[in-house]
Amino acid sequence: MTEEFRVEHDTMGEVRVPAKALYRAQTQRAVENFPISGTTLERAHIAALAQVKKAAARANEELGVLDTDRSSAIQAAADEIIGGDHHEHFPIDVFQTGSGTSSNMNTNEVLATLASRSLEGTGIEVHPNDHVNASQSSNDVFPTSVHVAVTSALVNDLKPAMDHLASALEDKAAEFEHIVKAGRTHLMDATPVTLGQEFGGYAAQVRYGIERIDAALPRVAEVPQGGTAVGTGINTPAGFSSRVVELLAEQTGLPITEARNHFEAQANRDGLVEVSGQLRTIAYSYMKINNDLRWMGSGPNTGLGEIHIPDLQPGSSIMPGKVNPVICEAAIQASAQVIGNDTTVALSSTNGAFELNVGIPVMASNLLESIRLITNVSRVMADKMIRGLTANEERARFLAEASPSIVTPLNKVIGYEAAAKIAKHAVANKMTVKEATIALGFVENGSITEQDLDKALDVTTMIGDYR
Amino acid sequence: MTEEFRVEHDTMGEVRVPAKALYRAQTQRAVENFPISGTTLERAHIAALAQVKKAAARANEELGVLDTDRSSAIQAAADEIIGGDHHEHFPIDVFQTGSGTSSNMNTNEVLATLASRSLEGTGIEVHPNDHVNASQSSNDVFPTSVHVAVTSALVNDLKPAMDHLASALEDKAAEFEHIVKAGRTHLMDATPVTLGQEFGGYAAQVRYGIERIDAALPRVAEVPQGGTAVGTGINTPAGFSSRVVELLAEQTGLPITEARNHFEAQANRDGLVEVSGQLRTIAYSYMKINNDLRWMGSGPNTGLGEIHIPDLQPGSSIMPGKVNPVICEAAIQASAQVIGNDTTVALSSTNGAFELNVGIPVMASNLLESIRLITNVSRVMADKMIRGLTANEERARFLAEASPSIVTPLNKVIGYEAAAKIAKHAVANKMTVKEATIALGFVENGSITEQDLDKALDVTTMIGDYR
Amino acid sequence: MTEEFRVEHDTMGEVRVPAKALYRAQTQRAVENFPISGTTLERAHIAALAQVKKAAARANEELGVLDTDRSSAIQAAADEIIGGDHHEHFPIDVFQTGSGTSSNMNTNEVLATLASRSLEGTGIEVHPNDHVNASQSSNDVFPTSVHVAVTSALVNDLKPAMDHLASALEDKAAEFEHIVKAGRTHLMDATPVTLGQEFGGYAAQVRYGIERIDAALPRVAEVPQGGTAVGTGINTPAGFSSRVVELLAEQTGLPITEARNHFEAQANRDGLVEVSGQLRTIAYSYMKINNDLRWMGSGPNTGLGEIHIPDLQPGSSIMPGKVNPVICEAAIQASAQVIGNDTTVALSSTNGAFELNVGIPVMASNLLESIRLITNVSRVMADKMIRGLTANEERARFLAEASPSIVTPLNKVIGYEAAAKIAKHAVANKMTVKEATIALGFVENGSITEQDLDKALDVTTMIGDYR
Amino acid sequence: MTEEFRVEHDTMGEVRVPAKALYRAQTQRAVENFPISGTTLERAHIAALAQVKKAAARANEELGVLDTDRSSAIQAAADEIIGGDHHEHFPIDVFQTGSGTSSNMNTNEVLATLASRSLEGTGIEVHPNDHVNASQSSNDVFPTSVHVAVTSALVNDLKPAMDHLASALEDKAAEFEHIVKAGRTHLMDATPVTLGQEFGGYAAQVRYGIERIDAALPRVAEVPQGGTAVGTGINTPAGFSSRVVELLAEQTGLPITEARNHFEAQANRDGLVEVSGQLRTIAYSYMKINNDLRWMGSGPNTGLGEIHIPDLQPGSSIMPGKVNPVICEAAIQASAQVIGNDTTVALSSTNGAFELNVGIPVMASNLLESIRLITNVSRVMADKMIRGLTANEERARFLAEASPSIVTPLNKVIGYEAAAKIAKHAVANKMTVKEATIALGFVENGSITEQDLDKALDVTTMIGDYR
Repeated sequence: MTEEFRVEHDTMGEVRVPAKALYRAQTQRAVENFPISGTTLERAHIAALAQVKKAAARANEELGVLDTDRSSAIQAAADEIIGGDHHEHFPIDVFQTGSGTSSNMNTNEVLATLASRSLEGTGIEVHPNDHVNASQSSNDVFPTSVHVAVTSALVNDLKPAMDHLASALEDKAAEFEHIVKAGRTHLMDATPVTLGQEFGGYAAQVRYGIERIDAALPRVAEVPQGGTAVGTGINTPAGFSSRVVELLAEQTGLPITEARNHFEAQANRDGLVEVSGQLRTIAYSYMKINNDLRWMGSGPNTGLGEIHIPDLQPGSSIMPGKVNPVICEAAIQASAQVIGNDTTVALSSTNGAFELNVGIPVMASNLLESIRLITNVSRVMADKMIRGLTANEERARFLAEASPSIVTPLNKVIGYEAAAKIAKHAVANKMTVKEATIALGFVENGSITEQDLDKALDVTTMIGDYR
Repeated sequence: MTEEFRVEHDTMGEVRVPAKALYRAQTQRAVENFPISGTTLERAHIAALAQVKKAAARANEELGVLDTDRSSAIQAAADEIIGGDHHEHFPIDVFQTGSGTSSNMNTNEVLATLASRSLEGTGIEVHPNDHVNASQSSNDVFPTSVHVAVTSALVNDLKPAMDHLASALEDKAAEFEHIVKAGRTHLMDATPVTLGQEFGGYAAQVRYGIERIDAALPRVAEVPQGGTAVGTGINTPAGFSSRVVELLAEQTGLPITEARNHFEAQANRDGLVEVSGQLRTIAYSYMKINNDLRWMGSGPNTGLGEIHIPDLQPGSSIMPGKVNPVICEAAIQASAQVIGNDTTVALSSTNGAFELNVGIPVMASNLLESIRLITNVSRVMADKMIRGLTANEERARFLAEASPSIVTPLNKVIGYEAAAKIAKHAVANKMTVKEATIALGFVENGSITEQDLDKALDVTTMIGDYR
Repeated sequence: MTEEFRVEHDTMGEVRVPAKALYRAQTQRAVENFPISGTTLERAHIAALAQVKKAAARANEELGVLDTDRSSAIQAAADEIIGGDHHEHFPIDVFQTGSGTSSNMNTNEVLATLASRSLEGTGIEVHPNDHVNASQSSNDVFPTSVHVAVTSALVNDLKPAMDHLASALEDKAAEFEHIVKAGRTHLMDATPVTLGQEFGGYAAQVRYGIERIDAALPRVAEVPQGGTAVGTGINTPAGFSSRVVELLAEQTGLPITEARNHFEAQANRDGLVEVSGQLRTIAYSYMKINNDLRWMGSGPNTGLGEIHIPDLQPGSSIMPGKVNPVICEAAIQASAQVIGNDTTVALSSTNGAFELNVGIPVMASNLLESIRLITNVSRVMADKMIRGLTANEERARFLAEASPSIVTPLNKVIGYEAAAKIAKHAVANKMTVKEATIALGFVENGSITEQDLDKALDVTTMIGDYR
Repeated sequence: MTEEFRVEHDTMGEVRVPAKALYRAQTQRAVENFPISGTTLERAHIAALAQVKKAAARANEELGVLDTDRSSAIQAAADEIIGGDHHEHFPIDVFQTGSGTSSNMNTNEVLATLASRSLEGTGIEVHPNDHVNASQSSNDVFPTSVHVAVTSALVNDLKPAMDHLASALEDKAAEFEHIVKAGRTHLMDATPVTLGQEFGGYAAQVRYGIERIDAALPRVAEVPQGGTAVGTGINTPAGFSSRVVELLAEQTGLPITEARNHFEAQANRDGLVEVSGQLRTIAYSYMKINNDLRWMGSGPNTGLGEIHIPDLQPGSSIMPGKVNPVICEAAIQASAQVIGNDTTVALSSTNGAFELNVGIPVMASNLLESIRLITNVSRVMADKMIRGLTANEERARFLAEASPSIVTPLNKVIGYEAAAKIAKHAVANKMTVKEATIALGFVENGSITEQDLDKALDVTTMIGDYR
């Protein structure tokens, strides 16, 4: 077994490390210290750490802190990780030191090993702290990497997926433009709307969600890089902070900016809490949409039955032929997860004191999971449900006309109180509103002609002009 | 204006106090320091503070710390407050010092004033700290008062109100025992149940809620009294803690017990967090019950229409004749408030450090509000809604028989897959399940006789024996 | 007693109403139906309802729906309520019908009574539904009133108060610019910062909070008015929606805009959920600031003792001379309340179905309370704590120099690993870093001169240029 | 590639399934329908599903529903899964149909395949629905499996781990029995306690947590099995429910009981919400303990420095020699995750309607993760931190004596107000309390002798008798 381990050291002494590991002593210590969840950092987060290291190597070289050989070797190694290689060498649990120092050192160690190997024969060694981590601290690198990974996930994954869903809903809004149905308020019969108006509302709700992401982005995309240990930028050359952030923005194509106040940025992760709140709002929007859809699709015979949700799989192990709105249910469960994750992220604010928040890894993993969930749910909803939805036009129209609230236009003719008498009479005697109006003598007494009554009670005139 | 104020002093100097106030300098300082919410302590909380002071005066007298004159005077004054007098002399905001020291001192000052007045002419003065507060600290008095007030509200208010609601639901379960209706899972048509079974389920859910309160009570009813400043019981005579708690239990008739560990009890309010979690669970139960009820009552013409919820008030300012399930809505909103209050209570745990939690006043006000809300909602639900509910028996039976899931008993005869064919055929061709079974040849091919088919498809045989 | 009541009627029949009440039957029914919390609508909310009614009366007059007499009378009555009169005639509990129909009708009834009285003798009656509520529904009026009240509270109350706090913190940042102190990360000794940098960070955090409000405002300030019952605008004249919103913006001086999609706006209160999330973020910011402050002020003898928080009141009923950071504690408790209120607001999203959310009153009361709490806490913090804070300069400097992390600048000279040896040696042997550096031979072996060492270890050089 | 797939069918038609898969059509459909999180059911949950299937096969055989061959084959197959085999054949995402029907069918399919294979050559086929699922529905099987898995995790994993932690804390309480230190309330200097008393408090807090689990267990361990589709027990033989639950309890050795009300049990998962609330309370307890520990260990030179937390790993990539309380931080982050998970679990209550909650899979995954996190954190805390903690006795004693609150015993001699003068004088003039007492003339004026003063101010007499 001796050949399977090698001995590495750090400032606390020697550690046995798997022989093939690219990482070194500090990573190994952290693996042993945190056998907690079995879950490691998200892949997108590891890539973002490598992006920071690459930008730092470039800035360090430009500002004379690193020689070109080492800088190039570090950049090349970082590119491999950005490209998706070596992620199996990042074995540390999410539940680790709250600053993410272990994962920053993991990154430093892996890059130092890769860079040193690429310089083999030159006599040049790359040290994890002195070179890879030059002009940096875990306290600026790790939060920066979270903001970068989250910004990327928002811009590159979530927003396109939400746009995809909104478009699918908008297509249905157009398709269902003339399907008149009963409106419902308090779950009770109300005046009519079109199914298209409802889907237009859902689409708008999703598009407002995109606006919510955009509203939070400026503060999510602000990064503390350059503040090093406590925000003062100790051990950085002049101009480092602005340059490294500029390079990071250039590398990633993201709207990353330097923290306007390095002490706020070092000590707090409020930008993450804020965007988590926006994700939470979006999750509640998705709950509403999916609840409406499954109620509209309820039945086939004992529910509302206004739409048909595509059949995806048998719905019951005991009730034959049953099919359920499973995408709605998966989406609502994912929303509940996002809302719980938001609690974790926000509560982690209390894990900050003085110059550092020490709840960053758990904030990162929850945020990145939440974004992934809404992203995937948006696409699954659009592709497996919305696009295949059909309207039960006849039933929808039947219900629209059955609603006693279609009496509402008569308010303007005979007043609210007389109209209420008609509505109550219709329901009590299982009549149509027209029949009740006549039965109560409103035509006979000249309050309204039968022709005007027909016109007033035509549900297609009650749906207004809003789309 | 000079006659309207008097000058009081405390260890920090002189303070102008309204001339008629029973309180003194420290209360006045707190009034000026905390102009935050405009809300003061709950009345039940003020009474509980007085209960603690009374018990302490008795124990102090027994153990030789207070003379009989002062003890009696303090007890008499406390009784006035317990009886509901003088609460206007407790003007301090909920959002105050986190230990409740201000309200403890408010109580000490009011009692000292009342007791001193009653001893006027005897030359005996009663001092807020040295006498009323003898053998006590805010750090044991205030949390003890919260546990006493909460225990009282749970035992005397909440549990009877929940029992009242459960009884109303049980009465309906009996009344609706033979009303067959469609079951619904995933909102989709399922095999039948009775309306009575559903109401029996709601009643059980409420009774489980009572069990949840009982499960938490032992830890809610444990009080830190006697630990004084930091749990060590400094400045108390031997035997004080057990005696004062015994007297408190006797006075209130509540199952109050002494903290098993005075350091845990001083530093943490976990018992409050726990019971808040139970209230939260109950609130979610109430949401479910009220959501079911309003969906069952939805309509009158475009919803499920299985029950009729009593008409309490006109439902719309524009749609004449509309009536809404307003008690359900009020109950759901109250539940949402309880759930939010629970967040506040639980989060306040993070406001503890070393020997004291300094989030106690806000925990108290939220818990007492939550208990009051569920208490009142339980009674309003029972008295204004449940007792007046009626079943739409015919419609309920019609829907039960319309559910394609009534094919389920055929699984045992012809297998799940064949039964699924029947259910799908029935829905696709708008047939009954019986018609579809025959149409697909299962009678003809001898799989089942028509007589057995009728028996198998009789919904009254599908509701089982559970009540 | 007969003279103390009068009989009013609505569409459900007759109701006895207090003789002096300005309200009528529907309000009285609601008072009786909802004996739940004892809390009524916020005053700012009542005023906002009156603003909507006034704008509607104006638009209705312009568009020919109301005659000038009635319109003027309604406007005049609304102005009285906007001015703060008659609020005692709004007795309905917050926990009521989820649409706020009861409070909308309460407003309609009070205005109808006032307007009718002002027209006494003219023979003109003003009807609550047909006139005051003309072209409106509770379903657009009530949510609009909430958005107006919330927008007003944010713009007129919260933002100025937060600016006031930020300014106080900025003043201290300037005052404390040269107070060097130990940085702390993970609560452990880190490299130095200035107290001014920390206060600058707090100020920035508060200013980011203002940005967060601004980021959400566009969606909070969007109102559904004109959608009436279900978003279609049934029973409104052409052009009503845009005109009534225009007038509402003009009357209030607020950036109120018409909903871009009336179906989204009718069915969802996501804009309120979003801004509640921003308030939640701000509350967590305040927790961080107050936790830092009270830790810095901890002591006087056994804590950190870096600052002195103004003495406001005696802190203990048993420990003489104790003074506590009570404003910090009140602020943290208020923050916990805001965070719990946010749970209630967000969860109320699940109370929406189809064309209406029926959790609006509880959303309103929680949001308005939250805004009031942060507003008042901001001012109390600034005026009773921040402005009076003083630095314990000498102790702060002593601790800064005692931190072994001041070895950090030596990384660049002798490498991270050698620097770690020095730091560990210093701590283990209770030496200064300088002494340890010399003891380990780094001066002797020429790694660094004593002069350069002194320069490197000068804490005033480690605080960087960021402010 | 054709050989790598086979064609399976279900009631909706044919599906291509990987050739080697033990599962069949419905599993494959679900894999394709739910590409959402990439996370599958927990292993303990899969084993619990197999336990239910085994118990059902036994009960079905006893009650004549299944022949011995099929029953035995199903039991043997279930035993393999219980033993940990074949879990890779359970590929369905957590975010799936809310009833868990997909995972129930996955289990049915895998068992049918394994059982059919074992009966190969006998001509006996085992059908997923008709045999493996006989007398069952997803609606009772899946929730039952969750309650079984959760009960097992609580009883077999969590409680022993918490006991392990409590014992470690109790050992330290004994070890530190005589270490006197400053008490702290409001973070400010208070009267002394022993470090042992504090650790005893932590131990008690953990033991109360165990009580909280026990208090909830009766309702967590109640299972709906036997209710089948909607609680009525349709398609079960008489006596099935009680027998299958009896067998399940016997097989697992857990205190599993049959639901007292099958309609409550089918429709609600309140028992899971309740226990999640208890886990949440425990998580907050752990936060408090870890926050205290890291503050006590803060320093080494600028913090409280009362204890030394074992050094586990280098703490900073930039500050040499720094070591941080990383286990505390990991534990606090895990606690935050548990608290967020609790939000998800509780909110999922709103996903119930009528006879079924459709948020069960996400409730299960969050609860099982939370239990695992607290379990592992308990052991890591005990083994990597608590057992290695040492007290800085001298510093602790020094601070205890420096606290001006040690004046408290003088209240009884000279009154609270005079004692306050001494405390203030001591702090203002940087004197000891003894010096201040003398300086203010209390010895000279005979209020107290110097000898009695020494006795009164001896901190070892202030720690009381509580342990």
